[in-house]
Amino acid sequence: LTRAATPADAPAVAALLHAFNSEYGDFSPGEKELTRIYRELLEAGELTVLLADGGTGFAQVRLKRSHYTGLPDAHLEELYVVRRRRGEGIGRELLDAAMAAAREAGATHFELTTGEDDLAARALYEAAGFTNREGHPDGPRMLYYEREL
Amino acid sequence: LTRAATPADAPAVAALLHAFNSEYGDFSPGEKELTRIYRELLEAGELTVLLADGGTGFAQVRLKRSHYTGLPDAHLEELYVVRRRRGEGIGRELLDAAMAAAREAGATHFELTTGEDDLAARALYEAAGFTNREGHPDGPRMLYYEREL
Repeated sequence: LTRAATPADAPAVAALLHAFNSEYGDFSPGEKELTRIYRELLEAGELTVLLADGGTGFAQVRLKRSHYTGLPDAHLEELYVVRRRRGEGIGRELLDAAMAAAREAGATHFELTTGEDDLAARALYEAAGFTNREGHPDGPRMLYYEREL
Repeated sequence: LTRAATPADAPAVAALLHAFNSEYGDFSPGEKELTRIYRELLEAGELTVLLADGGTGFAQVRLKRSHYTGLPDAHLEELYVVRRRRGEGIGRELLDAAMAAAREAGATHFELTTGEDDLAARALYEAAGFTNREGHPDGPRMLYYEREL
């Protein structure tokens, strides 16, 4: 089961993101700083976080008003399940809850990015109806680019 | 030269996006509907649009507060140059103006998505310092996934 996080959950969400980044060797500003930022963003309603039972994982969704439809588009920014609880379907549950929350907010489109070599994540997304192909199932792959400013 | 669009520019921006979609056979809700939505989003300050001189192209940027830094992250949602004016550097000018606008708003990170087969766009982004690789120059590619809700 999952539930929507409130600002009071900021420390729990921060701990999960910190664990996520530590596991993959990615930068983390630390739990204290993450707690501060999550509290602000959750209070301002700038993001939606779904928490899995017992703090075993979380999904994070951002909404923005589409310039095509005027309706919200949803972007999955984080999806994480603690290592000891993988393979039980918690990731799919969180993803479904994130899509449900987006639908409830009126969103019609849902997007995310992931690494080519993250086969478990890609299998999860593909099983849930996501495509990386443009236009049709054999279309060109859609790529994500970034740089620091 | 480029300048930031105001709500009064909504019809010009809508015409450019409509031309963009028509050229690539993508869905467009039509200029009238796009004008209505762009006027709303520009009035609300939900996006930044840079217009090239004489309506020859546009770039569109969305900002959101990062949960890592508390500072804005920037996402390039559209970049288009009219067909008769390609190859003159207008795309790079628009991209540079979009990055400058993002920096001015305090953003430290800039991201975008594009199709694997859009070699001109990819060359432009790579020349401007963007990477599609995770972690290091030979890292796995970063992929974009989507589905309708």
